[in-house]
Amino acid sequence: MSEFANVTVIKKANVYFDGKVTSRKIVFADGSFKTLGIMSPGEYKFDTRQAEVMEILQGTLHVLLPGETDWRTVQAGESFDVPADSNFRLVVESMVDYCCSYLD
Amino acid sequence: MSEFANVTVIKKANVYFDGKVTSRKIVFADGSFKTLGIMSPGEYKFDTRQAEVMEILQGTLHVLLPGETDWRTVQAGESFDVPADSNFRLVVESMVDYCCSYLD
Repeated sequence: MSEFANVTVIKKANVYFDGKVTSRKIVFADGSFKTLGIMSPGEYKFDTRQAEVMEILQGTLHVLLPGETDWRTVQAGESFDVPADSNFRLVVESMVDYCCSYLD
Repeated sequence: MSEFANVTVIKKANVYFDGKVTSRKIVFADGSFKTLGIMSPGEYKFDTRQAEVMEILQGTLHVLLPGETDWRTVQAGESFDVPADSNFRLVVESMVDYCCSYLD
């Protein structure tokens, strides 16, 4: 799917790490939402409340998922899942464009 | 207006200047569109095809508009207009979140 139709977009960006990570919230008719975001090169740690599916649209990153000891490389077209109430670490080498879905 | 309802969002970001400027295209029911974007600190020059209205949502930048010799400072909550088929220069000191409207 290359676009999301019949959605509401929150105008102001979500801003993290001094603007090195930013995202826009997209709300669907059923009330669910996703975020479309950009990560600049850098190292980041994110906490999750809901379980998440991170889909990489452009760029490549390395992720250390909770409970794992090996970093995984995730490229454009691939995704990774993160459990609820956990955290994950990222190393972003070049700009990454992502879509994050939040699972109930 | 803090959100755009009943729109289509193009999933993949537009990427400029090696990811230092990125934006998402928002298409309205009448076929018109806007872009919601992020500019990292830096100096940029943009060309316009259509006339544009650049609304600053977060951050501050300095703009040199076509035909002008003095730079203008534009802050969050303010906007500037750029004629069609022209160009403008920007100096972005800290991350800027913007909404660009394109005029017929």
